Amino acid sequence: MSDTHSNRPLLGSDDALQLAKWDEARLREILGGMHVSELADLLLSCRNDDQRRLLVEYIPDECLGEVLLELPEGVQEEVLAVFEPQEIEDVVEHLDSDDAADLLQAVDKEIADEVIGRLDPSERRDIAELLSHDEETAGGLMQSELFKVRGSWPVEKVLQVLRRFGREIENLNYVYVVDDDDLLVGVLSLHTLLFAEPEVMISLLAQTDFPRVMAGQDQEEVARLFEKYDVLAMPVVNASGELVGRITADDVIDVMREEATEDMYRLAALSDQDDLAESVSTTARRRGIWLAVNLLTAIAASVVISQFEATIAQVVALAVLMPIVASMGGIAGTQTLTVIVRGIALGRITFANARRALIKEVSVGLVSGGVFAVVMATVASLWFPELGMRLGAIIAVAMMVNLFAAGLAGSVIPLTLQRLDIDPALASGTILTTVTDVVGFFTFLGLATIFLV
Amino acid sequence: MSDTHSNRPLLGSDDALQLAKWDEARLREILGGMHVSELADLLLSCRNDDQRRLLVEYIPDECLGEVLLELPEGVQEEVLAVFEPQEIEDVVEHLDSDDAADLLQAVDKEIADEVIGRLDPSERRDIAELLSHDEETAGGLMQSELFKVRGSWPVEKVLQVLRRFGREIENLNYVYVVDDDDLLVGVLSLHTLLFAEPEVMISLLAQTDFPRVMAGQDQEEVARLFEKYDVLAMPVVNASGELVGRITADDVIDVMREEATEDMYRLAALSDQDDLAESVSTTARRRGIWLAVNLLTAIAASVVISQFEATIAQVVALAVLMPIVASMGGIAGTQTLTVIVRGIALGRITFANARRALIKEVSVGLVSGGVFAVVMATVASLWFPELGMRLGAIIAVAMMVNLFAAGLAGSVIPLTLQRLDIDPALASGTILTTVTDVVGFFTFLGLATIFLV
Repeated sequence: MSDTHSNRPLLGSDDALQLAKWDEARLREILGGMHVSELADLLLSCRNDDQRRLLVEYIPDECLGEVLLELPEGVQEEVLAVFEPQEIEDVVEHLDSDDAADLLQAVDKEIADEVIGRLDPSERRDIAELLSHDEETAGGLMQSELFKVRGSWPVEKVLQVLRRFGREIENLNYVYVVDDDDLLVGVLSLHTLLFAEPEVMISLLAQTDFPRVMAGQDQEEVARLFEKYDVLAMPVVNASGELVGRITADDVIDVMREEATEDMYRLAALSDQDDLAESVSTTARRRGIWLAVNLLTAIAASVVISQFEATIAQVVALAVLMPIVASMGGIAGTQTLTVIVRGIALGRITFANARRALIKEVSVGLVSGGVFAVVMATVASLWFPELGMRLGAIIAVAMMVNLFAAGLAGSVIPLTLQRLDIDPALASGTILTTVTDVVGFFTFLGLATIFLV
Repeated sequence: MSDTHSNRPLLGSDDALQLAKWDEARLREILGGMHVSELADLLLSCRNDDQRRLLVEYIPDECLGEVLLELPEGVQEEVLAVFEPQEIEDVVEHLDSDDAADLLQAVDKEIADEVIGRLDPSERRDIAELLSHDEETAGGLMQSELFKVRGSWPVEKVLQVLRRFGREIENLNYVYVVDDDDLLVGVLSLHTLLFAEPEVMISLLAQTDFPRVMAGQDQEEVARLFEKYDVLAMPVVNASGELVGRITADDVIDVMREEATEDMYRLAALSDQDDLAESVSTTARRRGIWLAVNLLTAIAASVVISQFEATIAQVVALAVLMPIVASMGGIAGTQTLTVIVRGIALGRITFANARRALIKEVSVGLVSGGVFAVVMATVASLWFPELGMRLGAIIAVAMMVNLFAAGLAGSVIPLTLQRLDIDPALASGTILTTVTDVVGFFTFLGLATIFLV
């Protein structure tokens, strides 16, 4: 990596702990000069919880909160578990409201309440409000630190007030204009403010036609709006239209990573909490649940096969060829499933055009089915010439039926889940391949039983 | 863009063209004294292309290039379309290489090549390099519109210059500090600038320790750096450390969507060009290539099965159970593959910790293998009691071996591709399941041939 920090000698967790024994002051100095993400990397490289806890002691309070927020949730909770309420308060005090709320969510409910109770009243209100929103909505994403002004103020006054009260606000790029009831009526960039004449009234400069989000909107939708409008920040309003917070593009970048990982993991039959840093046994347990589901569906497919044991006993070639029919259906179905799930996530497939997507996917299934039917008929006839053209015809029909089923199931399953307000990515490969396995084995072996033996 | 000019009455384009008729020398003198941004504004205020072309004649060669670069691309191209190669060369000669490259991109390819051929060798090299920026690198992503100042300037002067020339820069949130050689030495937010005392020297306010990217860095890496440092914009430097552009978070949001879709598609054996809007035949063709690859790998697995036809003919239960062994391996392998591919994409798996990830995945495979071996041994013994404990033992061993192979292949394949500088997501499910199918069928049927019949 070529960022500026690459030329700094890398401090390993072992070195750090060695240094702690000899020269605590020097260690604090080194850690104090490191970037939060570097400190997070350092904590992640610790070999065990004890090492980590020891190292945390030396990270300055001012940045410890931000460092903890960079860590995977499991590690975060583990570190915070041994903190006293007073220590947590010291950390929280240095964070923006949205980060403070996020961190408090990783703490025991009782301790979090105790910490919140100690904060000063305005901060307490802010955080209590933020904690009341679902983590995965605009409300859970926003921060309450923002700068709002009245439309009747002149530029001069805004700059004055801004200079007095805006210093603490990070990434302040927009000023929000509200009316007497705190309803959001306009947005103004710092940039515009800088170029304005001192005596001009703010309401004359503010944009009144601008994107905003509702506190209850899903974070995935928020990310889509950011992408659509190419903005660096968006105001958040509550149901009455009152300005309650703002979301900045850097938070949206994190959301997009998270949502993409979640969809990718779900499609692959993984829990979205699966993490590189967790222990073998935890990971094995998480994945085991999905493997167990897959085992049940695989047994279902095997039950189908067992219905045709007599046929297979007569023509063993069927056992050789049947996995090909199932496998092709599985891959084609996964292709469709992935396109549909991603299309829904990106907002490109909506209720309005779902039917068109479905028709297209089924058509693709039929076209591919036709092509690979011919290919497989040829392969089967050459491989098992003693079974003649009939085996070729049977595998061709089975291939067509299964690729059609793949296109149908690959689109109907996620579209239905979406309709039912369930994450469409939960229609993972496991469920899809059950359909293609069952349809593939049943059609192929069924036709063979009727026409071949 | 960063030099100052005395106040000058604004000259309208109509006035200028009137003056041209009466006193060309005076017009040249006036235009020669104007700042490039003012000249660009003058050109933009022209009512039509003919007016604009006429006026361009009077703008001195020394600054014409910079003026043209201030114009929107469409206008730029329109003006340059009537230039002779010699005239373009005269303009390009007065430009920094990156500006020259940008300008040449607005010119017909043939004419651009002719102009580049006439330049002196070092300049030619520079420009060829800039023109070569891959679309998917920081260089291809960045915009050159930015605001740079000298560290020796006081805040007051920066604000003055900014007010005069910064108006056109979209999403201007940071001011970049460069030295005499245009090397990037600091970054300053508009926000900080606004709160500073007028007489303070910029170099005292600027951050000198800040993230930056190299023009040649991959856009995926750029996105990771944005995520790591939570910034809204990052400066781009060339190999010598000169500031060449900046990237804003809204561009990164687009990149992240694109990269996540690409990885998701590749894992699902889809071309990243697969699109909802394209025709059934185009989609069927794109996916058909991957289906054909899968067909070959499925046939390979079937060839393995065919080696054991005699065994299957004797014990048909093997044909019933063998898809379960293969399927469990496929799902477990896909879980590992997805975690590793995503970990690499997010920068969490690097060369340094790859071994740890590999060991973990293989361990998870062994643990799951152990658990599901016991489960399957029980299921098989209950399902086919006539085959006794021996079938159970055989399927248990096959399950363990295959889940071990799944963990190994699921991590080794993408890590090796990454090592070879090939996109690890290309290790799609298709390739992985070939391994788990072959290992599963071979182990299960092989053991059965030795111990069961």
